[in-house]
Amino acid sequence: MRTLSAFISSSTSFGPCFFHRLTLRHSHKTLTSSLAPCFRRQFTPTMAAPEDSLRKALADKQSEVENQGNQVRSLKAGKAAKSEIDAAIEALNALKLQKASIEKDLQATLSSADGSVNREAFRQAVSNTLERRLFYIKSFNIYGGVAGLYDYGPPGCAVKSNVLAFWRQHFVLEENMLEVDCPCVTPEVVLKASGHVEKFTDLMVKDEETGTCYRADHLLKDFCNDKLQKDLNIAAEKAKELKHVLAMLDDFSAEELGAKIKEYGIVSPDTKNPLSDPYPFNLMFQTSIGPSGLIPGYLRPETAQGIFVNFKDLYYYNGNKLPFAAAQIGQAFRNEISPRQGLLRVREFTLAEIEHFVDPEDKSHPKFSEVAELEFLMFPRELQTSGKSAKAIRLDEAVAKGIVNNQTLGYFIGRVYLFLTRLGIDKKRLRFRQHLANEMAHYAADCWDAEIESSYGWIECVGIADRSAYDLRAHSEKSGEALVAHEKFPEPREVEVLVISPVKKEIGLAFKGSQKNVVEALESMKEKEAFALKADLESKGEVDFYVCTLGKNVSIKKNMVKISKEKKKEHQRVFTPSVIEPSFGIGRIIYCLYEHSYYTRASKAGNEQLNVFAFPSIVAPIKCTVFPLVQNQKYEDIAKDISKSLTVAGISHKIDITGTSIGKRYARTDELGVPFAITVDTTSSVTIRERDSKDQIRVDVKEAASVVKEVTEGLRSWADVWAAFPHHSSASADE
Amino acid sequence: MRTLSAFISSSTSFGPCFFHRLTLRHSHKTLTSSLAPCFRRQFTPTMAAPEDSLRKALADKQSEVENQGNQVRSLKAGKAAKSEIDAAIEALNALKLQKASIEKDLQATLSSADGSVNREAFRQAVSNTLERRLFYIKSFNIYGGVAGLYDYGPPGCAVKSNVLAFWRQHFVLEENMLEVDCPCVTPEVVLKASGHVEKFTDLMVKDEETGTCYRADHLLKDFCNDKLQKDLNIAAEKAKELKHVLAMLDDFSAEELGAKIKEYGIVSPDTKNPLSDPYPFNLMFQTSIGPSGLIPGYLRPETAQGIFVNFKDLYYYNGNKLPFAAAQIGQAFRNEISPRQGLLRVREFTLAEIEHFVDPEDKSHPKFSEVAELEFLMFPRELQTSGKSAKAIRLDEAVAKGIVNNQTLGYFIGRVYLFLTRLGIDKKRLRFRQHLANEMAHYAADCWDAEIESSYGWIECVGIADRSAYDLRAHSEKSGEALVAHEKFPEPREVEVLVISPVKKEIGLAFKGSQKNVVEALESMKEKEAFALKADLESKGEVDFYVCTLGKNVSIKKNMVKISKEKKKEHQRVFTPSVIEPSFGIGRIIYCLYEHSYYTRASKAGNEQLNVFAFPSIVAPIKCTVFPLVQNQKYEDIAKDISKSLTVAGISHKIDITGTSIGKRYARTDELGVPFAITVDTTSSVTIRERDSKDQIRVDVKEAASVVKEVTEGLRSWADVWAAFPHHSSASADE
Repeated sequence: MRTLSAFISSSTSFGPCFFHRLTLRHSHKTLTSSLAPCFRRQFTPTMAAPEDSLRKALADKQSEVENQGNQVRSLKAGKAAKSEIDAAIEALNALKLQKASIEKDLQATLSSADGSVNREAFRQAVSNTLERRLFYIKSFNIYGGVAGLYDYGPPGCAVKSNVLAFWRQHFVLEENMLEVDCPCVTPEVVLKASGHVEKFTDLMVKDEETGTCYRADHLLKDFCNDKLQKDLNIAAEKAKELKHVLAMLDDFSAEELGAKIKEYGIVSPDTKNPLSDPYPFNLMFQTSIGPSGLIPGYLRPETAQGIFVNFKDLYYYNGNKLPFAAAQIGQAFRNEISPRQGLLRVREFTLAEIEHFVDPEDKSHPKFSEVAELEFLMFPRELQTSGKSAKAIRLDEAVAKGIVNNQTLGYFIGRVYLFLTRLGIDKKRLRFRQHLANEMAHYAADCWDAEIESSYGWIECVGIADRSAYDLRAHSEKSGEALVAHEKFPEPREVEVLVISPVKKEIGLAFKGSQKNVVEALESMKEKEAFALKADLESKGEVDFYVCTLGKNVSIKKNMVKISKEKKKEHQRVFTPSVIEPSFGIGRIIYCLYEHSYYTRASKAGNEQLNVFAFPSIVAPIKCTVFPLVQNQKYEDIAKDISKSLTVAGISHKIDITGTSIGKRYARTDELGVPFAITVDTTSSVTIRERDSKDQIRVDVKEAASVVKEVTEGLRSWADVWAAFPHHSSASADE
Repeated sequence: MRTLSAFISSSTSFGPCFFHRLTLRHSHKTLTSSLAPCFRRQFTPTMAAPEDSLRKALADKQSEVENQGNQVRSLKAGKAAKSEIDAAIEALNALKLQKASIEKDLQATLSSADGSVNREAFRQAVSNTLERRLFYIKSFNIYGGVAGLYDYGPPGCAVKSNVLAFWRQHFVLEENMLEVDCPCVTPEVVLKASGHVEKFTDLMVKDEETGTCYRADHLLKDFCNDKLQKDLNIAAEKAKELKHVLAMLDDFSAEELGAKIKEYGIVSPDTKNPLSDPYPFNLMFQTSIGPSGLIPGYLRPETAQGIFVNFKDLYYYNGNKLPFAAAQIGQAFRNEISPRQGLLRVREFTLAEIEHFVDPEDKSHPKFSEVAELEFLMFPRELQTSGKSAKAIRLDEAVAKGIVNNQTLGYFIGRVYLFLTRLGIDKKRLRFRQHLANEMAHYAADCWDAEIESSYGWIECVGIADRSAYDLRAHSEKSGEALVAHEKFPEPREVEVLVISPVKKEIGLAFKGSQKNVVEALESMKEKEAFALKADLESKGEVDFYVCTLGKNVSIKKNMVKISKEKKKEHQRVFTPSVIEPSFGIGRIIYCLYEHSYYTRASKAGNEQLNVFAFPSIVAPIKCTVFPLVQNQKYEDIAKDISKSLTVAGISHKIDITGTSIGKRYARTDELGVPFAITVDTTSSVTIRERDSKDQIRVDVKEAASVVKEVTEGLRSWADVWAAFPHHSSASADE
């Protein structure tokens, strides 16, 4: 945390697009789980400017070097005076030095804009600690592992379980949501209705000789980035083109991607063999349900569908009342073509999704006032397309100005902000980015992503979308089950309805056997068409009318149909609810939390850097350690008694009775992010040490467990405890 | 709970084998996830005796009826006197009546032994309530559902999450276990090592015309049960044979099953078409990892393998010390051929598994004394094979007498007992059944199942097995990674080791090119073989010796090899730890909990039976409801304030401001198992009602939330609260 600035240059917030976006919920286009347009690269003129001018200066200087070289050669060929030749050579050398200096500047500009070296060093430091302390483990490691599959080891598993418990408290309990738990194995019909079977694909190319598969956009992206970063001699014009390609990657069709790959001569990175044309690969893991092999199934790519198919029961459970929210925490699966980015792009992950069902005509939220005054970094569409930065906006202002589409969406944005920052996400590296028009599904009313900045760039960790009625309608159509809500009117309402009355006798006389087709075609007219027909009939008396079931026009006369609007009493309104969906990638949030919580500090001797995770108590995998200061039966007995009290109090802790120095034991637990340590150094009282300040208080043995319980459960702050107990300063405390 | 005896006859504890055992962990044989032998039927002479004698009496009476019938016919044919014929007919009718009476008795005996009618009525009552209140939902119901897949609806999901939270508290936290979280998607190599790819199968038959699949043992079982229960005319001998088949089902090979199916003429139950021979069907869901289609994978059939493959890292994390336990909660998958038994046999389910690694030479447990005095129903091998019942045994006695193999296994049996009974499992319907020799894997030291009695019979819900070193060895061999532990000796120990020294010169001279093979074969001898060879060489001077890499015998002479035992100093012992594995089928435990918690009681008016789930607070999906007594703004405001306080206190609750009568609202929440209800009937104080006693106390508005928090979190008992607050008796309370 504190040393992050040492690793990442402050200019990174608009650094190149390192991150691949995994759209947590698909839009019509991002069902393709594809890369987000690189707006950050596209709209960073302050950074592009020096790079461009340096590239131009370099090209100019290169010409000068060439010209001067030619001059030297022609002087030599013309047997000019030695002094003249020497002067020309001196000038050439000076030009070469100037060129080298520009190259150096360009290199520096590129890598500072990029920040990749520092970012990677930081990431490596975090990952080393995480792996060494088993926060995560490459799955099936003794068999060589499988790309994109990771285990959570003991501290990682505890962090995950704490994050999920807080999620349940913050969302499910606080909002009285209906939590459900549906299977991962899902029959094909459900995912056909949702569109996943057809559209949940990425474009893939194959090495034409070995058959190895690659993501087409990855190869093109790598090529462009490589060229931009390593080839100093490309013209500014070419650099601009490559940047444009990077920005457009997400919008490319298979044909466009294929054309670019051909144009740039991109080959298989491992073998240099030619590549196939790009073609879509469905990202769902496929399986078969039951022994017959006749029921195709998939592992769910998201948990949301399990909620949508249960809408009717859940609506009933909620007393047939809107709004209500259902929630689900569970595993989701995506068979990535070639997973990269460690814990951020994996093949199996935990999602926590909320589907808040609401009347499309009333998206106000009764508790909006509770979040209205929150102010945080927002990145609306307009700021993105005009090349500006995210800025702090008050939530009520954002809703009032229509930046955020409605109160309910705004309410959830606010709640997500509170959730993430209470977990320990740095609010300066958290922003809410609105989807651009071309990122959003046609049916969506508005979408915002909670993006967290990490060493991979800005990572989408929560998607918050107003998906309108799309999902319920899709399942209604496919299943034939009406997934609708009812609003009973306090008293019946008068409404105007279109009435089309074909005069069957006349139609029968005119069309005989085709009577039924004509009647049905007339009755199925929409209002506009019906009144146009009526007007035509009144003016012309007879009109050609297309009957699709006959596949031809028939001639309709004025006496064959009556068209009017009539008043009718309605007792209720039947409608498909809109759904507002906050969808949380739990693994991504946890990874970003690791990066935001990590810092190093010098050991007391000053000879090494010690790792610390500054987890809040709510997240910390272990809340407290218990150490006897030295190996001694009396101290050990007291430590065990305190351990028992902590167990009874439900405080996860670890007792360490090894003879290692107390300083080393503190360092070991700082690295796990343990917020408090109880050290037994007398038989009557003990010290309690706070991780980040390293401050220590002296507490009676009997009180130790309850003080730790109070501070870890947030009933009391450390400042409060610090004020209430005697302080302990020990020379040995941090050895 | 209280009405269970009304549904289930008291004789059911040894009723027929209704339940199919899903072996939570496989033995060498029950990797086939198959039926347990029906010991209960086999060893119930007290029940078989009346049935047998009735069958015999019926057969005898049938002969008498036939004989008498023949006599009547011959009298008529012989034109005997009318009085003589009438007397014979009267005798015939009397015999027929006697036969009918025996049939009735037999029928009654069969159905009381069976209890199936009452059991099914009880099960139906529980299921109706569970389904109506969305404890569970058939998954993907709007698309017709998928057999063996269920969703947990809101209350079911809350119960599950409470059970898992308590499991974490009771096992992981209390024992400082290392919890891990591994993927469901598992590459084939892991499940080849574990034996699942080869052996995790059930035997299946196909309808030869439609291709519909059935479990072979199910068909045979259904046939035998049907015959036994519905065909009153089978001879006692035949009945005995069918019962023997039922008892042996689990032991039948594919050939034996096929032969029985042919012998009994069993056909496809739906079409009456002939059936194929039985063949093995692997129960794992198969998939493919990555885009190439070249990495076969499966959905894990259990979570344990994820722990075994991480043994090395976990051992290191634990400071290279034994014993330690790792734990995992997660989804597991079994592609059942034709799932039956509702929530008890499903295709996707949650397992919670513990792998406790221990030195095979020291299986004592430091905390055994904490469970030593527990006494509960145990069903050791000897009682089963001698046809006796389970009996209450003290745990320390069971370990001391060697009934339970070792202290650590005993400790976990005790902890499982405490876990289940604290959740609300009725201790009278919980027993620990030891595996018989033929159920256990050859490598297992001892296995016990926690079985819970439900309307399906005794259900295996937790398996507790001492699996010795099998799993770690299997993965060591397959992966080449040594999964071992080290015991460093305080000081080096002298040990005797076998030393085989081939004399290469002599061997080279004798066997030339084959020298290496002969040397290796000599060196690889085990102690016994080596000393036999040595003795032979000493007595005969020359011996034939088989070299497997040459595929032939060679002649070894005395001067070619020296064999001796030498003393050596060893600094540590390297060994493969034993693993003791408690494995919990969470869904099964929850289902049994539903049955054990369910009871009905008459409504106040006495005109209907109301459903109640007597969940302990720790399990209850909602801890408290808040009701304004009547619709009234003041009361509603107070109800909302109390609701807010409950939210802050982290108590899950529901507020119900509908105008329904308070009695109906109580009944609705009793049906969800909500233990407490706060009713706002004045603006200063409220009543708190306890679900099972229906007792009410009067509490100040401001205290209401904290009193409920104390009683639900077990800080205070209801008796305590009842003694401390004024009682409220209201005529309207239970209307």
